[in-house]
Amino acid sequence: MRATYLFGPGDVRVIDAPEPRIEQPTDAVLRTLVACVCGSDLHPYHSAQPSEHGRAMGHEMVGVVEEIGAEVTTVAPGDVVIVPFVFSCGVCDFCREGLQTSCRVAGLTVPTGAGGAQAQYRRIPFADGTLYRVDVAVDDERMPGLLTLSDVYGTGHHAAVTGGAAPGKDVVVVGDGAVGLLAVLSARRLGAERIILMGRHEARTDLGRRYGATDVVAARGDAGVEAVRDLTGGDGAHVVIDAVGHLPAFEQALGVVRAGGTVARVGVPQYSDGPIGREQFGRNVTITGGVAPVRAYIDDLLPGVLDGTVDPGAVFDRELPLDDAATGYRLMDDRAALKVMLRP
Amino acid sequence: MRATYLFGPGDVRVIDAPEPRIEQPTDAVLRTLVACVCGSDLHPYHSAQPSEHGRAMGHEMVGVVEEIGAEVTTVAPGDVVIVPFVFSCGVCDFCREGLQTSCRVAGLTVPTGAGGAQAQYRRIPFADGTLYRVDVAVDDERMPGLLTLSDVYGTGHHAAVTGGAAPGKDVVVVGDGAVGLLAVLSARRLGAERIILMGRHEARTDLGRRYGATDVVAARGDAGVEAVRDLTGGDGAHVVIDAVGHLPAFEQALGVVRAGGTVARVGVPQYSDGPIGREQFGRNVTITGGVAPVRAYIDDLLPGVLDGTVDPGAVFDRELPLDDAATGYRLMDDRAALKVMLRP
Repeated sequence: MRATYLFGPGDVRVIDAPEPRIEQPTDAVLRTLVACVCGSDLHPYHSAQPSEHGRAMGHEMVGVVEEIGAEVTTVAPGDVVIVPFVFSCGVCDFCREGLQTSCRVAGLTVPTGAGGAQAQYRRIPFADGTLYRVDVAVDDERMPGLLTLSDVYGTGHHAAVTGGAAPGKDVVVVGDGAVGLLAVLSARRLGAERIILMGRHEARTDLGRRYGATDVVAARGDAGVEAVRDLTGGDGAHVVIDAVGHLPAFEQALGVVRAGGTVARVGVPQYSDGPIGREQFGRNVTITGGVAPVRAYIDDLLPGVLDGTVDPGAVFDRELPLDDAATGYRLMDDRAALKVMLRP
Repeated sequence: MRATYLFGPGDVRVIDAPEPRIEQPTDAVLRTLVACVCGSDLHPYHSAQPSEHGRAMGHEMVGVVEEIGAEVTTVAPGDVVIVPFVFSCGVCDFCREGLQTSCRVAGLTVPTGAGGAQAQYRRIPFADGTLYRVDVAVDDERMPGLLTLSDVYGTGHHAAVTGGAAPGKDVVVVGDGAVGLLAVLSARRLGAERIILMGRHEARTDLGRRYGATDVVAARGDAGVEAVRDLTGGDGAHVVIDAVGHLPAFEQALGVVRAGGTVARVGVPQYSDGPIGREQFGRNVTITGGVAPVRAYIDDLLPGVLDGTVDPGAVFDRELPLDDAATGYRLMDDRAALKVMLRP
């Protein structure tokens, strides 16, 4: 089969790889319908150690079940399934609590020995706990929206939920990537009326406005903080979402949060230590968020995707055949594409 | 009048100072009934710049109203009042939301130009918004309990509330000072059944057990983390309260928090940056707490103090006349006293 591997910085290749097979009785093997490139894929794209064997890439996909292990009971060959970016057993206490990212059995398997999602086929461990069956055809036109439930929409929703977005709460979203834009959509969906999007890429911030952003602030750093404070009567916002992950973005988030407010992080931190001293303590700032247990959110988010109430799939502004995955990475790295969908 | 001043490291003196007078129509002047030394007073006690004029000390007190300004309407001469350690106007949006520590008008006035609480008299700005009238006599025997509502009990309660202590939630309290012990009491009061107190001073941890601690861990650092993890099936606790404020205590708190759990800080951070990178992100750890808006909690906490359901006043293990304040500081600094009450 064809599969995408990263061999070193900037070195993405789609190569021939062995087709996956059932290895455990709880596995399923899927044929990929749609996959995509994630903003977080760009971190190894920049910094991966060169490697002869490469690293299988991709963690977002919708697929169709080809084969199941002897113990799999909830999906069957032919089913269309959403694949959350973290595998989960579905049975342990963390899974039952909705924190599948801390599953005791499957753990945080990104990247994974199960192969990447940017490939024609993929083995999924713990198929019963991981996969979410959707009653659609393999060529359903809502496939882009369904694909966002694999990661980006659930991640934006996680930020809005943990941050406490709600009616009457001002929200700031730092970052105009796909997660940031879907955090805007999620905050609006949860009832926030005032949503300020911090980003400078106009095509993206335009989509942000369509998703519910009431204001866009292009300035960054101190100027950005000042602009948001001006928009919020000097106070900052109750809910601030960091959808970037770099330290300056987090500092910006802290700069625009209201006393007693919350900063929810969903951009993977590219730092170890950060400012959480007396300034944050004196203002009773809460820092929350984390890697999103998207599996927990599909029940809630799927109906809107199916009935068209929301259009998270609009974050995909480019579609490429799987064999052009390297182009997809380059387009996203150059910010020439917001998010690239791949079809095998 | 007699008043306590700090002139430099370890240099506490009770001196003659001018009696305060009404300066603003919203002021009240109180005669101090009881005051005390706070763990946070020990930070300047260690590190204050030597100064000729000194710094008025103390921010916890119960007093009796001597005189009020022309615009004060909610208290009258002769009333016994609890003085929250932060003054607040009572009218602005932050005060109405219960975040009086971010009051737009009075601000965080510790230490304050209004004079310290470790004195015979004290001027209180924004008397209507700040003071809490209690219907007791000036010699009421519950005075120690009432005094804790000025800071330490409300601060321990803030930790338990923001941390999410509740039935079914395991709680760890790092620190066996008065705030830590009252965080234990508060967590128990909010329904937590399993409460692990990390502290090594046996008289204190014994009081912690009386307040509801089910386990005491004397070990610190990695050994302490391991001991708590052993007690919690390897996972750590849902709610962890940092009642210390030094970086090792915060690191210990992060080490014993369960994935998806919360660290609530009420010890004033003695650090600027702390570990909030991928480890905390991957485990969805929330960091919350801050300087406690104790004024907001008195309605809720006072009845239990008055009817004896709880005994927060037991944290005062020494009582001294005001003139012996320097001895009180030394006893607390040597950990020979848990918390020293001063009576003018």
